[in-house]
Amino acid sequence: MSEYIEHDQVGKSVGLVEKKTFTFAQPPDEMILESGARLGPVTLAYETCGALNADQDNAILILHAFSGDAHVAGYHHADDPRPGWWDFMVGPDKGIDTDRYFVICVNILGSCNGSTGPASMNPATGKEYGLEFPMVTIADMVAAQKVLIDHLGVNKLHAVIGGSVGGMQALEWAVRYPEMVESAVLLATTTRHSAQAIAFNEVARQAICADPKWNQGDYYGTDRPDMGLAVARMIGHITYLSDESMRLKFGRRLQDRADFSFNFDAEFQVESYLRYQGRKFVERFDANAFLYITKASDYYDFERQHGNGSAVKAFSGTAARFLVVSFTSDWLYPTYQSRAMVKAMKKTGLDVSFCEVEARWGHDAFLLPSERLTALMKGFLGHVNGNG
Amino acid sequence: MSEYIEHDQVGKSVGLVEKKTFTFAQPPDEMILESGARLGPVTLAYETCGALNADQDNAILILHAFSGDAHVAGYHHADDPRPGWWDFMVGPDKGIDTDRYFVICVNILGSCNGSTGPASMNPATGKEYGLEFPMVTIADMVAAQKVLIDHLGVNKLHAVIGGSVGGMQALEWAVRYPEMVESAVLLATTTRHSAQAIAFNEVARQAICADPKWNQGDYYGTDRPDMGLAVARMIGHITYLSDESMRLKFGRRLQDRADFSFNFDAEFQVESYLRYQGRKFVERFDANAFLYITKASDYYDFERQHGNGSAVKAFSGTAARFLVVSFTSDWLYPTYQSRAMVKAMKKTGLDVSFCEVEARWGHDAFLLPSERLTALMKGFLGHVNGNG
Repeated sequence: MSEYIEHDQVGKSVGLVEKKTFTFAQPPDEMILESGARLGPVTLAYETCGALNADQDNAILILHAFSGDAHVAGYHHADDPRPGWWDFMVGPDKGIDTDRYFVICVNILGSCNGSTGPASMNPATGKEYGLEFPMVTIADMVAAQKVLIDHLGVNKLHAVIGGSVGGMQALEWAVRYPEMVESAVLLATTTRHSAQAIAFNEVARQAICADPKWNQGDYYGTDRPDMGLAVARMIGHITYLSDESMRLKFGRRLQDRADFSFNFDAEFQVESYLRYQGRKFVERFDANAFLYITKASDYYDFERQHGNGSAVKAFSGTAARFLVVSFTSDWLYPTYQSRAMVKAMKKTGLDVSFCEVEARWGHDAFLLPSERLTALMKGFLGHVNGNG
Repeated sequence: MSEYIEHDQVGKSVGLVEKKTFTFAQPPDEMILESGARLGPVTLAYETCGALNADQDNAILILHAFSGDAHVAGYHHADDPRPGWWDFMVGPDKGIDTDRYFVICVNILGSCNGSTGPASMNPATGKEYGLEFPMVTIADMVAAQKVLIDHLGVNKLHAVIGGSVGGMQALEWAVRYPEMVESAVLLATTTRHSAQAIAFNEVARQAICADPKWNQGDYYGTDRPDMGLAVARMIGHITYLSDESMRLKFGRRLQDRADFSFNFDAEFQVESYLRYQGRKFVERFDANAFLYITKASDYYDFERQHGNGSAVKAFSGTAARFLVVSFTSDWLYPTYQSRAMVKAMKKTGLDVSFCEVEARWGHDAFLLPSERLTALMKGFLGHVNGNG
């Protein structure tokens, strides 16, 4: 979920990509959300790479994780120092080959990277929504994406692909619009949060709400709850890594000193790293969006929503082909959860490929260049096409 | 470390126990701490159960975990609703048999439960220390305990016993005062924190320091940083449980409602539970003490301190018999860490018994009644006596 892991450029870039937006659900025709609340207008920020072919059967929808955005690959301008968050996977001849596929990536509803969320203007009041923003769910995010996909003239999705919270959306797509989804790739994800995953999210939310500057979500135009949001991010960050990756990356090494300071400065490297991650995050993310999106992910319960508690029943609502990938050191959404999902898919008679990738880097592994993952992706997408 | 897990009374109680204190290191004869700083006077709160025998060879020192206190067993008065934190283990005919052993438990230096810590009065200023309190280490805690043990006329400790941070102290006792320590019982502990353990402590500290009421540690007599401390405790609490225990205890069950509220109330049971744990904790613990004790545990590095980086070398400084117990679901101090410790002990030629106890309840397992643990303890202590 730490989308901005730094990595070297891998392979050829898609080059320049354009930031786009699409606005719909103009009042009085607002979106009716899962909670029953109404929301409109709704703007979605999105980007595309590659081109839709004449048969309109080469579109791939990529769904980003928690704090991600629509900028999945390429650069926004010639001097752009950093490519999109999945540039190693998306591009000419890459795992998701933009010479072959029309790739769409959308910033999720409720976020703060161009799409409508709690930091957006509430047309009813003329000021930012804050906590007036209605709760949005994974199903709402997907329903909004569907409007955009229709608008783009795409009737079939060759694949929906997502990791983490993006994987939940891919799952939701497969059962909500089964006629549109030929295949789905679910990376480092789960059908529903464990109590432990909810617990981490809740403590992170409490860290934000404990910051007096949060002010019940009404902080736009004044000081933002940076301290609370930084702590929330640090909590999340620990869950994205793993015991082993932290040992390899930091161990007990000290930062810029040979011995203990015997004070409360950041002196272990892991302390400096976390503080840095916290500071960096507040520059690019909104505290209320953090609250809404974590809550949406906690609420998500594929079995409950689509199968009355049964995953097998839930999966009977789709005929998509699936690729499920878990990572050995991911303890946020551990492999046993992917296995349970795959077992249910198989019971339903679905065509599913499952792979547990050896990885030391925890939950974040799906965001790191991996030949294995790239090969899996390429093989699966090609096979779906009938020429793999 | 959540010493106050509620459990039924198990077996006969030691009955009433008295709160005692011992004060030493009166200026100008302050304690010289590991950092080089001076601290005095030093008061230690302690309790004892059972009686020292004529041979003075039946004393057992119990070292509490992070937020614990000296009240290890029995009751303070006739109407006391709650026995000491390890009452199921310490009492007549229990795992640590008070008919046979003279049990001593001391609140650690730096804490807030009767012993000198950052909330104590600084004689130099006439107000609470706050951040003027010098950093204390595990070695300092043990050095202070040694003064008390001497004061009690005890020359030999039949056993030093501790879980978690208490286990670090037991380890420190065994090598710092090898002539006094016949045996040591190390429960759910480690020779040094992993990067992940440091990370969790650091985020918890950041949660406290992010609370404006913390005010650089200077909050005594005004509002306390309860919000920050509650978040810190919630973070800790997740690490004391396990994925499985949370699933069994809470799963995705909702609290007092049949369906989602679609707001930010605590609605999952695990959310209510964590908020409750946070609220309860601030009533009994000091935020600065949280900072100091977590830092002491992060600093602790048995290998570095006693073996120049080598555990084998470090253990060569003691001839104590050891019992090392880990718990399958403890992911804060996982079994692999205990195994590494045991391997080093064996290489040194020490007499060590190791047991990994099947337990679902994570790190907290050592604080929960367990026939297995009680039997292990009884067997080990009896055997040390030569009549087991």
